[in-house]
Amino acid sequence: MIFNIPNITNRLNKELNAYEFGSSPAELYDPVYYIVSLGGKRLRPVLAVLGASLFTEDLEKVYKPALAIEVFHNFTLVHDDIMDKAALRRGQQTVHEKWNTNIAILSGDVMLVKSYELLASIDSKLLPDALHKFNECAAKVCEGQQLDMNYEQVDAINEQQYLDMIEKKTAVLLGFSLELGGMMGGAKEKDIDLLNQLGINLGMAFQLKDDLLDVYGDPEKFGKQVGGDITANKKTFLLVKAMELAKGEDKKKLAALLTDASIKPEKKVKEVCAVYDKLNIQKLAEDKIESYFKKADKCLSNIDSSVYKKSYLKQFINKLKERES
Amino acid sequence: MIFNIPNITNRLNKELNAYEFGSSPAELYDPVYYIVSLGGKRLRPVLAVLGASLFTEDLEKVYKPALAIEVFHNFTLVHDDIMDKAALRRGQQTVHEKWNTNIAILSGDVMLVKSYELLASIDSKLLPDALHKFNECAAKVCEGQQLDMNYEQVDAINEQQYLDMIEKKTAVLLGFSLELGGMMGGAKEKDIDLLNQLGINLGMAFQLKDDLLDVYGDPEKFGKQVGGDITANKKTFLLVKAMELAKGEDKKKLAALLTDASIKPEKKVKEVCAVYDKLNIQKLAEDKIESYFKKADKCLSNIDSSVYKKSYLKQFINKLKERES
Repeated sequence: MIFNIPNITNRLNKELNAYEFGSSPAELYDPVYYIVSLGGKRLRPVLAVLGASLFTEDLEKVYKPALAIEVFHNFTLVHDDIMDKAALRRGQQTVHEKWNTNIAILSGDVMLVKSYELLASIDSKLLPDALHKFNECAAKVCEGQQLDMNYEQVDAINEQQYLDMIEKKTAVLLGFSLELGGMMGGAKEKDIDLLNQLGINLGMAFQLKDDLLDVYGDPEKFGKQVGGDITANKKTFLLVKAMELAKGEDKKKLAALLTDASIKPEKKVKEVCAVYDKLNIQKLAEDKIESYFKKADKCLSNIDSSVYKKSYLKQFINKLKERES
Repeated sequence: MIFNIPNITNRLNKELNAYEFGSSPAELYDPVYYIVSLGGKRLRPVLAVLGASLFTEDLEKVYKPALAIEVFHNFTLVHDDIMDKAALRRGQQTVHEKWNTNIAILSGDVMLVKSYELLASIDSKLLPDALHKFNECAAKVCEGQQLDMNYEQVDAINEQQYLDMIEKKTAVLLGFSLELGGMMGGAKEKDIDLLNQLGINLGMAFQLKDDLLDVYGDPEKFGKQVGGDITANKKTFLLVKAMELAKGEDKKKLAALLTDASIKPEKKVKEVCAVYDKLNIQKLAEDKIESYFKKADKCLSNIDSSVYKKSYLKQFINKLKERES
């Protein structure tokens, strides 16, 4: 096959669709096939394959362990959706809505187990280190989700708290994806660390871009209700910064908008956006995103591989930079 | 230290109490320390250590991986308690009661991750096989729990369905405990398989004994409300057999007792027990338990180790045979 990102994604999807998670009892395994079939960009395993491709052309053995990360990610979606009481995931019913909460808990559990089984298909020499790093990363993802829940209960958090939270909840898994790829490709310790840092910076930029698109995305391209985070009082980078920077009347207004349960969603979005605009929040967010992408680029340039081999990962990063949905 | 079961248990508890699961956020890790501190017999890691002791005297390296099984078991308790809406565990509040359901889901998740981290401390040569077997076992435990939930929704199940369910939900983890011990002790393939079979048979006997003690245990020694399973309409071996064997009036009476929501618990227990007695269910259960213990003894006698080394595991099995709580 010609090596390019669509082909990597297709190959990963093929492998994932062919993977036998289990069949009986159906109540346990049907939700696993369901959530995995809802698709998504397969961002994380693609990063793992791209990470490996910097150091080897022998990528056959890379796909299956890379899918461990995708299955792990989908496990977190199933459990997070329970905790967030989310009704929809990728425009379809969430597992706990389509079945029930108990089934969603248990199917999620078995997905976590299966992610370890996929990881176990890695070259046995790499397994101890890969398993340890995966465990560390997985624990951080749990910590990030707990912080996210904690922060829902407080009036305000500062920028650093927000950044720490998204690093754990989102970024470390992208870091691990590239890191695992590098390990499988046979990279040196130094380059494996750089890949991890690259992925973390990419993950930070990715989450901040999500926050930005919610408000400033093109409604036709975004695919979700613009301002959904505002309606849900979600603590995004935009809101955290606005609460930090707003003074006097603006501060009062923002606080009132967040606590007034009677206000109509459209009005709330419009008025919160007005505060954002006054405080130049869009520019602040764009600059922050840019700064993380720059750090990611720096990591990539320091990695010991050819410009040609790096071009695919470079291209992938550029697509993330330019994404509008 | 002198090698005996109390000392093994103490050593395991010491190691478990010293293990650093994590600290921040507290909402994630406090429940982990809490559930683990509630105690229990530490049956599974003790079995792992005893399994290893049949083949080696160098047991230092065995304790930490053995604790993977205890932490995994506690993870299942936390999630099962959510699903069963249980308020108490070992006489104390369950995690979802003491904190909330979201915290119980997430703390359980991180415990599952930590069980893999404990397993990762095994000799790296053993890791690929141990990880694969642990994954297989863990998936079966999830399957067993799902079957248990499914069976709550149906009027009757047959004996085979019941035995398959408890094998997955309970017995395979005891099988894996001994198996992992054997692997760590350096046992041959054949003996590792025998240990697994031994543990499964022990697990079956253990669960059936639980079912029996609920009804025929000595109230003063049992420590739980006698007949609790009957009150909860739990499908135990006793109930499954009674529903299979009851004819005519008895069958009608049993069905009526199970569906009559107005009947007082004491009366229900008394009348269901009367049916059990008429059908000689106690004897049937005792015979079944005995048959599993016999199979376990047979496995032990076929294992290639000294009579002296086997004496500790033998003694442990005898304690399980005679237990009254």
